[in-house]
Amino acid sequence: MTVDATALDAADPLARHRDRFVGTDTPLVYFDGNSLGRPLAVTADRLASFVREEWGGRLIRGWDERWYDLPLTLGDEIGRVCLGAAAGQTFVGDSTTVLLYKLIRAGVDHAVTSDPHRTEIVIDTDNFPTDRYVVEGIAAERGLTVRWVEVERETGVTVERLGEVLGPATALVVLSHVAYRSAFIADGAAITAMVHDAGALVLWDLSHSVGSVPLALDAWGVDLAVGCTYKYLNGGPGAPAFGYVATRHQGVLRQPVQGWMGHADPFLMGPGYTPSAGVRRFISGTPAVLGMLALADMVALLDEVGITAVREKSRALTSYVVSLADEQLAPLGVTLSSPRDPARRGGHVTLTHTRMREVVATLWERDVIPDYRDPGGLRIGLSPLSTSFAEVAVGLAEVRDLLSGR
Amino acid sequence: MTVDATALDAADPLARHRDRFVGTDTPLVYFDGNSLGRPLAVTADRLASFVREEWGGRLIRGWDERWYDLPLTLGDEIGRVCLGAAAGQTFVGDSTTVLLYKLIRAGVDHAVTSDPHRTEIVIDTDNFPTDRYVVEGIAAERGLTVRWVEVERETGVTVERLGEVLGPATALVVLSHVAYRSAFIADGAAITAMVHDAGALVLWDLSHSVGSVPLALDAWGVDLAVGCTYKYLNGGPGAPAFGYVATRHQGVLRQPVQGWMGHADPFLMGPGYTPSAGVRRFISGTPAVLGMLALADMVALLDEVGITAVREKSRALTSYVVSLADEQLAPLGVTLSSPRDPARRGGHVTLTHTRMREVVATLWERDVIPDYRDPGGLRIGLSPLSTSFAEVAVGLAEVRDLLSGR
Repeated sequence: MTVDATALDAADPLARHRDRFVGTDTPLVYFDGNSLGRPLAVTADRLASFVREEWGGRLIRGWDERWYDLPLTLGDEIGRVCLGAAAGQTFVGDSTTVLLYKLIRAGVDHAVTSDPHRTEIVIDTDNFPTDRYVVEGIAAERGLTVRWVEVERETGVTVERLGEVLGPATALVVLSHVAYRSAFIADGAAITAMVHDAGALVLWDLSHSVGSVPLALDAWGVDLAVGCTYKYLNGGPGAPAFGYVATRHQGVLRQPVQGWMGHADPFLMGPGYTPSAGVRRFISGTPAVLGMLALADMVALLDEVGITAVREKSRALTSYVVSLADEQLAPLGVTLSSPRDPARRGGHVTLTHTRMREVVATLWERDVIPDYRDPGGLRIGLSPLSTSFAEVAVGLAEVRDLLSGR
Repeated sequence: MTVDATALDAADPLARHRDRFVGTDTPLVYFDGNSLGRPLAVTADRLASFVREEWGGRLIRGWDERWYDLPLTLGDEIGRVCLGAAAGQTFVGDSTTVLLYKLIRAGVDHAVTSDPHRTEIVIDTDNFPTDRYVVEGIAAERGLTVRWVEVERETGVTVERLGEVLGPATALVVLSHVAYRSAFIADGAAITAMVHDAGALVLWDLSHSVGSVPLALDAWGVDLAVGCTYKYLNGGPGAPAFGYVATRHQGVLRQPVQGWMGHADPFLMGPGYTPSAGVRRFISGTPAVLGMLALADMVALLDEVGITAVREKSRALTSYVVSLADEQLAPLGVTLSSPRDPARRGGHVTLTHTRMREVVATLWERDVIPDYRDPGGLRIGLSPLSTSFAEVAVGLAEVRDLLSGR
């Protein structure tokens, strides 16, 4: 018999942080924090006072005083708190898609120039659509080949599967660290080492990892990474993404969108582009200052709590979903499409049933908000600091009721 | 003798809008509204209530309800109010630099494919740095040539100068409609027609025009345009840019950053990228919703006032600067680096003096905030709805005092 949600919430050392988020005092069950995280209450005041005092009061002087360096200082904070990345390698800017384009181009352009036989970009068939579309577009324009890793939806990219396609033609490998459907966690250390053994570079998409699963980019020897900030980093709809470029590559790699904010001296405004030293060269245009403020609040909270404690709560939440599903939903024909081993499972759980599309539509009407993902997947995203065990119990009881015709 | 500022403010029909902006009740003289516009007071509350109610309350449902279409609905508003553009051609997203990259690539890739002899991108030597850097980067990666239009800083790109470089090798012409230093207004209609006569496409950078100078993109037959929204559209530091692609090109042109938000069916998430019909195909990643809210407030105000009235005030403000400069600063050696003809002058004025760099540094200390632009340029940006004639008089009196050693 599964433990009672009330007891789990009472024993949860992080439960006290939940009321710092907007809307957690309502009966809404929110299972989509891995798609769009709830705002912190402090963020509303932060934005209003930013408009009145910083933008409205400092005006153009804000650039010198704080904003110009914000993509790098906030990047360093994300790196330190969430990525296991030393300072000077992480920056904030552009959408996830645009950053993927810029850093994949930087990687493959360099690989191909260094060795013209490296003509393949490796990516898995179940990677997030935007990653696949970007890779297909770059391959077409650069005359390269996309080499697909065929994966089962329930798992993800394993060392074995990747081994079948890696070789002397590999230029760059693009993988998601946590799979967006199954939540399968790829082995970052082993795969990075394996790609390097093949003489190629790796780019990790951390969108479904950052803020819920600890990362160790420096220790793994990662080359490039990109991540989304409006999921577990609660940056708000369309908040700018972050990129990571290992220090050892910064003098050599160049990205294609040459803009004034990546210039060695942006206000010189002279003829000809000279890329900045360091990670700034991967920035193109004026950074989205408003879009970084909510994100900064959440990174500060994650720093306060610690990513290890966050991961512990995340595992407890997803394990609770699995145990409730085993007990109450499996008899109704629901299957688990996420890893059963919590060590290989990220911050969300996908439960599959042929009727799940209609179930999700009705759940929304009943103020239970998960995502639906084809085929037949109920994707339950559990943002560790803003989700309670009671929320899980209420939401899964609704799923049970709907599937049993109540 | 120049008219008294108090009389000019008293007679200004738009003066009553000034107190709708944050900070206009302070003694600060703000001459940089063409670099970063002041926020509207309503924007502070808008952002706070967005966090509490729309993001915090609607959560992921906000995408279906409003946010997904916001880049297009807000784009249409910018088009209608500011650009002379019918609906379905303007969208919001990415930084100005990234949008320049995407649309210049779309234009040249198409031109070169249609006619391999068109190997030149034309741009002027005094265009904004990011435009030049982007063009140089694209030329290098696509094996094209940059053909420079040499212009005098005091003027800009004229039909005569452009005629010297246009020809059968021209693929795309990239020009600023209002020059960022001199404020010279290029002849949009004549130059667009001339580029078309040469069989090429034109992309206009509207960053220093939009919101202060009326535009007629459809009437001129413009192909492509990009503009910044944190200058005269008061979108806040790093607010997303807008792009314009004429309807007749939308089925043919493709941009290189293939992302899920430009896909014909973003939530299908299947294999292979199929671009959306219409202007949505020029969007790549998740739109920056927070960054569009302030901008929407300002576009609504511009709609209320009307761009013709805004332009009239803008001309009155810049003419007042010129008359004060003639009277008080010319005797001290200051020269006008902007067109004397107000019909050829955008929303700012540049005044030049060998000592101007140090003058601007001291002005900042005295709470008079213009920009400095090499060589020796004091750039006075006069955001029409938030700048008073009294502000102009106070600011120029400080310049006079500093240059005469007071």
